[in-house]
Amino acid sequence: MATTADRPHKTVHASTVARDTTRVQAFSDGVFAIAITLLILEIKVPRPASPSEPFSLLQSLLGLWPSYFAYVLSFVTIGIYWARHHYIFMLYQRTDYVFKLLNLLFLMWISFLPFPTDVLATYLSDSAHHDPLTQQTAVTFYAIGLFLPAASRTLMWLYASRARRLVDPRLEEGFMRRITTVYVGTVVLYASAVLVSLVDYRLGLAVCVGLTLVYLLPPRAPVYVRKSA
Amino acid sequence: MATTADRPHKTVHASTVARDTTRVQAFSDGVFAIAITLLILEIKVPRPASPSEPFSLLQSLLGLWPSYFAYVLSFVTIGIYWARHHYIFMLYQRTDYVFKLLNLLFLMWISFLPFPTDVLATYLSDSAHHDPLTQQTAVTFYAIGLFLPAASRTLMWLYASRARRLVDPRLEEGFMRRITTVYVGTVVLYASAVLVSLVDYRLGLAVCVGLTLVYLLPPRAPVYVRKSA
Amino acid sequence: MATTADRPHKTVHASTVARDTTRVQAFSDGVFAIAITLLILEIKVPRPASPSEPFSLLQSLLGLWPSYFAYVLSFVTIGIYWARHHYIFMLYQRTDYVFKLLNLLFLMWISFLPFPTDVLATYLSDSAHHDPLTQQTAVTFYAIGLFLPAASRTLMWLYASRARRLVDPRLEEGFMRRITTVYVGTVVLYASAVLVSLVDYRLGLAVCVGLTLVYLLPPRAPVYVRKSA
Amino acid sequence: MATTADRPHKTVHASTVARDTTRVQAFSDGVFAIAITLLILEIKVPRPASPSEPFSLLQSLLGLWPSYFAYVLSFVTIGIYWARHHYIFMLYQRTDYVFKLLNLLFLMWISFLPFPTDVLATYLSDSAHHDPLTQQTAVTFYAIGLFLPAASRTLMWLYASRARRLVDPRLEEGFMRRITTVYVGTVVLYASAVLVSLVDYRLGLAVCVGLTLVYLLPPRAPVYVRKSA
Repeated sequence: MATTADRPHKTVHASTVARDTTRVQAFSDGVFAIAITLLILEIKVPRPASPSEPFSLLQSLLGLWPSYFAYVLSFVTIGIYWARHHYIFMLYQRTDYVFKLLNLLFLMWISFLPFPTDVLATYLSDSAHHDPLTQQTAVTFYAIGLFLPAASRTLMWLYASRARRLVDPRLEEGFMRRITTVYVGTVVLYASAVLVSLVDYRLGLAVCVGLTLVYLLPPRAPVYVRKSA
Repeated sequence: MATTADRPHKTVHASTVARDTTRVQAFSDGVFAIAITLLILEIKVPRPASPSEPFSLLQSLLGLWPSYFAYVLSFVTIGIYWARHHYIFMLYQRTDYVFKLLNLLFLMWISFLPFPTDVLATYLSDSAHHDPLTQQTAVTFYAIGLFLPAASRTLMWLYASRARRLVDPRLEEGFMRRITTVYVGTVVLYASAVLVSLVDYRLGLAVCVGLTLVYLLPPRAPVYVRKSA
Repeated sequence: MATTADRPHKTVHASTVARDTTRVQAFSDGVFAIAITLLILEIKVPRPASPSEPFSLLQSLLGLWPSYFAYVLSFVTIGIYWARHHYIFMLYQRTDYVFKLLNLLFLMWISFLPFPTDVLATYLSDSAHHDPLTQQTAVTFYAIGLFLPAASRTLMWLYASRARRLVDPRLEEGFMRRITTVYVGTVVLYASAVLVSLVDYRLGLAVCVGLTLVYLLPPRAPVYVRKSA
Repeated sequence: MATTADRPHKTVHASTVARDTTRVQAFSDGVFAIAITLLILEIKVPRPASPSEPFSLLQSLLGLWPSYFAYVLSFVTIGIYWARHHYIFMLYQRTDYVFKLLNLLFLMWISFLPFPTDVLATYLSDSAHHDPLTQQTAVTFYAIGLFLPAASRTLMWLYASRARRLVDPRLEEGFMRRITTVYVGTVVLYASAVLVSLVDYRLGLAVCVGLTLVYLLPPRAPVYVRKSA
């Protein structure tokens, strides 16, 4: 019979779909774990500029404060992105090809973050102004680095939630709208951090730090529709 | 009885085979995730050549466009290789020793990719021609870097599909032939990208980009034989 | 009925909680594995200072003994942290948002360790004293690097075990008090290693090595309450 | 009743042991995947020594042949260690604390391998002999780098197989003796590679390559005792 003949085919597909979501999550977790751990490679051991020059290791280590600041900020930011990725994948029930490409795009910007972090760490402190615009450029570039994963994440959500394409069908409409608001709002705020840092880089950086602090608050529990009895 | 005495032996073997495929996939995913995340390490923070020279961070960051281009191209290429590895492993039902060595060979070329990517990023832009052949060499080397994993992947498929050695026996003959055609075709196209870039490096690079764009299209769903009732 | 309507909701939550602990462990294991493997990147191949100078590879490789020492010490320390993280997660039954943030804080200091390791490797040996305080600073910085993950780990335990918030409710009271004593004691000992190395860096380093050696001893098996019949 | 009261305790222990072996394997796989992928970081993009000097990218890339050779040799060696670790863990049924420390020691030498690989790649080629002993030192150091994981692996096996402490009790005595012979033999051969390279570095390197080639042969299937009926 047709149904019996089809069954092996369908079995493969069912297990494939489950394996799919798991393998996408595992791969994403791998990229998160590596990107977050690579951040430390950007902090280099201070060495004397020349053998003859006086050199204090203590002062050099203290002088690396922009590196420590950038390390902590980027570590916490990637860590929160990981926790939120984890949270949102609770709501996704399936994946498709476009979704996987959008996730790849998101991971591309997460992996990119160590570079703007390094630029920020190198040019944030005051010593050796090569150009009055150096610090401004560094902070703007860092804010763009934070804007890009936020934008890709929102794209993923809009794609997956439109017509409940890939999300759990039992999710409440109002809860889904709230996520859309939060995601789009974050993108708008990071975009304004970029613009603000063109005017005042200290304020732009404060917006970036502030957004990360806000995101330290726990996300709301998902709300599901209660079937009427 | 003999069957009872044999059972523990067989049980070990059955679970071992399943664990095998899973562990090969997990190891491959690890290498993919690391290789893709290491790409960013090749982009170095721009620094002034000497303290006295004028230095614009903005212009230096913009001047890194070949690095951004190479980062995105290699990230997407490795990402697609990952997605396709994922897809093809749906079709493999077993592994054997030779298959594992061929997979290792494939991973060796995936791990190698950050190096030609870095060569391309360093020598693609126009500034400071050391030699008229520099850009040509960089693109050709990059095209070879893309050719090698494509060739190993095809070797794996030919080995695994010959006489349906390791693949799902229910796969349709025509579907399998189509995969062979696509895989061999990709190898031929990357080989021609190598040859073309010896003549015109811009055209050679365009072939590489074009192949990656084509591979962004979703793969066909596997086709299985329908047992007649 | 209400219970039937609630069931899918609860099912999602139950499986979510289990996936939670597993995914937190998997992510932590990833960070441990990467941090421990990145340590080797800090050891650079010795090269002659200038082409004209006499250069012995053998002597240069032998002269890297502080790097080998720091590599082994940090590798073993991170390895033990991994084994103990593994052990303590046997006792945690649930996670919550604050716990995940504290775990992230702990991983931030584990990932940070390659940097103080590199500082120690660079400035531990006697050659080229730039400053009488150089070695003292290097060892103190390393001891701080060891103190930070110990302190975060204790914070995690105190948070999770208070009022048995996240731990297995069947754990014996006395056994839990013993863990608290060991964890707080370790923090106190690392803090004293920091202070001691301000006075005598050799003694401070000996305390760090000693603590690692003590931690090589196996942890006690967990003790559970025996319900009376 | 006592048995009912004990059951949760035992359940925790049983699942803990299984999770143990799995988590040790997963952590080891992570370290293997990272160590094997980090090898490429040791190959640096060639750059002109000074802007005025003539520079051929093609010749520079060809001149990196010792780096390619060392990359392939170390990649294949680590890959085989991974496959064999995978194979031998089929035979281990349990882990204990000492076994986990020995596995950590083994991983410490696997993670160390990128460094001797880099030394070999830097000093294998003929150009710029700084010292007649340079190449000899580089090859000897590399052979030591290969000897150390082989020795630790043998230590693990001897510990686990003694009195069948951790291995599958159904393994045939003769099969186990054969593994012991192969493992101890490999250690002896790597030790002789170290000694030989002190006399003739080309011969020493040939022994290292030869051993890797021999290990490309598939391992024997495990042999289990047949219970008599």
